[in-house]
Amino acid sequence: MEAGPPGSARPAEPGPCLSGQRGADHTASASLQSVAGTEPGRHPQAVAAVLPAGGCGERMGVPTPKQFCPILERPLISYTLQALERVCWIKDIVVAVTGENMEVMKSIIQKYQHKRISLVEAGVTRHRSIFNGLKALAEDQINSKLSKPEVVIIHDAVRPFVEEGVLLKVVTAAKEHGCSDYDLEFGTECLQLALKYCCTKAKLVEGSTDLWKVTYKRDLYAAESIIKERISQEICVVMDTEEDNKHVGHLLEEVLKSELNHVKVTSEALGHAGRHLQQIILDQCYNFVCVNVTTSDFQETQKLLSMLEESNLCILYPVVVVSVHFLDFKLVPPSQKMENLMQIREFAKEVKERNILLYGLLISYPQDDQKLQESLRQGAIIIASLIKERNSGLIGQLLIA
Amino acid sequence: MEAGPPGSARPAEPGPCLSGQRGADHTASASLQSVAGTEPGRHPQAVAAVLPAGGCGERMGVPTPKQFCPILERPLISYTLQALERVCWIKDIVVAVTGENMEVMKSIIQKYQHKRISLVEAGVTRHRSIFNGLKALAEDQINSKLSKPEVVIIHDAVRPFVEEGVLLKVVTAAKEHGCSDYDLEFGTECLQLALKYCCTKAKLVEGSTDLWKVTYKRDLYAAESIIKERISQEICVVMDTEEDNKHVGHLLEEVLKSELNHVKVTSEALGHAGRHLQQIILDQCYNFVCVNVTTSDFQETQKLLSMLEESNLCILYPVVVVSVHFLDFKLVPPSQKMENLMQIREFAKEVKERNILLYGLLISYPQDDQKLQESLRQGAIIIASLIKERNSGLIGQLLIA
Repeated sequence: MEAGPPGSARPAEPGPCLSGQRGADHTASASLQSVAGTEPGRHPQAVAAVLPAGGCGERMGVPTPKQFCPILERPLISYTLQALERVCWIKDIVVAVTGENMEVMKSIIQKYQHKRISLVEAGVTRHRSIFNGLKALAEDQINSKLSKPEVVIIHDAVRPFVEEGVLLKVVTAAKEHGCSDYDLEFGTECLQLALKYCCTKAKLVEGSTDLWKVTYKRDLYAAESIIKERISQEICVVMDTEEDNKHVGHLLEEVLKSELNHVKVTSEALGHAGRHLQQIILDQCYNFVCVNVTTSDFQETQKLLSMLEESNLCILYPVVVVSVHFLDFKLVPPSQKMENLMQIREFAKEVKERNILLYGLLISYPQDDQKLQESLRQGAIIIASLIKERNSGLIGQLLIA
Repeated sequence: MEAGPPGSARPAEPGPCLSGQRGADHTASASLQSVAGTEPGRHPQAVAAVLPAGGCGERMGVPTPKQFCPILERPLISYTLQALERVCWIKDIVVAVTGENMEVMKSIIQKYQHKRISLVEAGVTRHRSIFNGLKALAEDQINSKLSKPEVVIIHDAVRPFVEEGVLLKVVTAAKEHGCSDYDLEFGTECLQLALKYCCTKAKLVEGSTDLWKVTYKRDLYAAESIIKERISQEICVVMDTEEDNKHVGHLLEEVLKSELNHVKVTSEALGHAGRHLQQIILDQCYNFVCVNVTTSDFQETQKLLSMLEESNLCILYPVVVVSVHFLDFKLVPPSQKMENLMQIREFAKEVKERNILLYGLLISYPQDDQKLQESLRQGAIIIASLIKERNSGLIGQLLIA
């Protein structure tokens, strides 16, 4: 079911949601269940999610409502939608946004190709927004494309890291438990809403660290770092099939492996129409090191770039491509190859439009094995830095190891 | 009193400390007061702080105890000590660390030149650690260099952003209030400790957003981003006094100003023994752009580097220096200057030892004014990226705008 980038090892946060910051925290794991129940164990036939996203984010200290704040140039709410979309058994996702943000939201859905999303007008309060979402799901109109759900999950638009396990727990609990005083005592807003307007039962279930809520500016920083870390867990070294290329390519691969622990380093040939490479792209590897050994042109790199552009890989996350060129600085001074290699600036501008971050890397290739190891190590450090930071301000630069 | 880097605009977090995550949060603003009182309004004659730092950080999900986790290569606890050191009326700071971390702690104090610090052995529990700290302060030995305080502030080692205002509130409250049931009802650990062992009064006072506690890995990410932001609020453009240098230097200064809003851009000449520049360094500007116009040597940059090395500026934070060189790419292809400019790699390695991050930047200087503006703009974007990320993996690189 894991359709997203490989999850990074994150610390386990103990305790139920109510150990979180505020009452609103509870809503993430509060679920509304219609009177029609479901078999325990299995998740129900029809589950929908309602995302109240009408907030104006005054606590964030930034003009943009926090659900629209960019992380790696993509709005926060798009990450939340992505997390819910991954769960195949959530049939409909209803987002409540204010009228003034309706167009923004539509363009986000289009740009990031979100599926199963319906929009409703947000209310003046969070309660009202949830209510409008529920109403849209409850309405039994012929021309409504929404299927009436058995269970509705209320999920904050600003909790981007929710995972299927937690959602399943919520849905299962929705069947198994009635409403407890315990919940009410803690005054969970949307539990009360559920009781008041929807003649439903409700129950508080345990959350996880993934449920943390982006509330303050520092949370945006944390979210960006977590996402950068998640998409930096695999590097693919791409090389053509010529023997000497493969040789130095594999040397670089080895050094990358030893320098970057915890990072999966694979290698793949571009030859044979890159069938295997296609699979690596499908498996969502977001980092590529393209080896162009003795050549100072970009044939290999351009092949890779076209493959990436044809794929959907770059829609959700910026993909890093490092075009590596080897050169014996003793025999050929770097300057001699500069003119040609400077072309990379133009390529980089082009592919940035498609969310690909292209950098050039010239690695010294001395005869002395020990010196070669050292320059490879230096190259690995630079590659690691570029992948870690995904700094769009430095695209098209030719770095030297 | 603001001795640190200029604080960045952070959102206001409402509510008292008890709206924080756990009971332990309260301790940050709980203060222990001996029976000897102080005049209201004024802060007392003798204030000391005790930092329990014996934790093993199991929730962090990393082997290193969180108080020793590096942020910009400096351990977290050093930032907390720095925050307390800034407060002149805190006479003694007692840190409780486990025996096995005693040497690590000593080396941290030495390396970052922390003052007014005493170390005691941590206890098996947080309570015991605080108690050991209090005992060291209470002891009335001739050979104890600690002065017996009127008020002791208990502060978590993993709350690096505490500011003087909050500490003053705590100390004032220590005088003005007795111990309330309210506090006890919330079971604030160290309030109970205070009552049980130290025959003191205690009171819970309001905290601020700065008091947030580094608990999980994501908090380390947030802390690093906040610190990077704080030390990136000012850039000084350094140029020598020759007319043409000043001209292009000021052009770059203007573009930096327009490209980087919210960042203070100043300029200073290196001439006249750089008297004013000394002041800018003393005022803790952590970012320098050194303009070497037509030259492809590093005279200006080297002068600046020696000034920085002589100062204490680099002890606490990595200082970014961008050595800028202008070149009309039409008349002189960049490659022609490369050999010479590549020297920067060696300089960069040297000064990295002193916590200076040196990068080279070659800016195209065409006759066409519009093109010049564009390459200056490109240069500004690169400078901004280097300052924002402080990426030590890319030091010594020669970037091209």
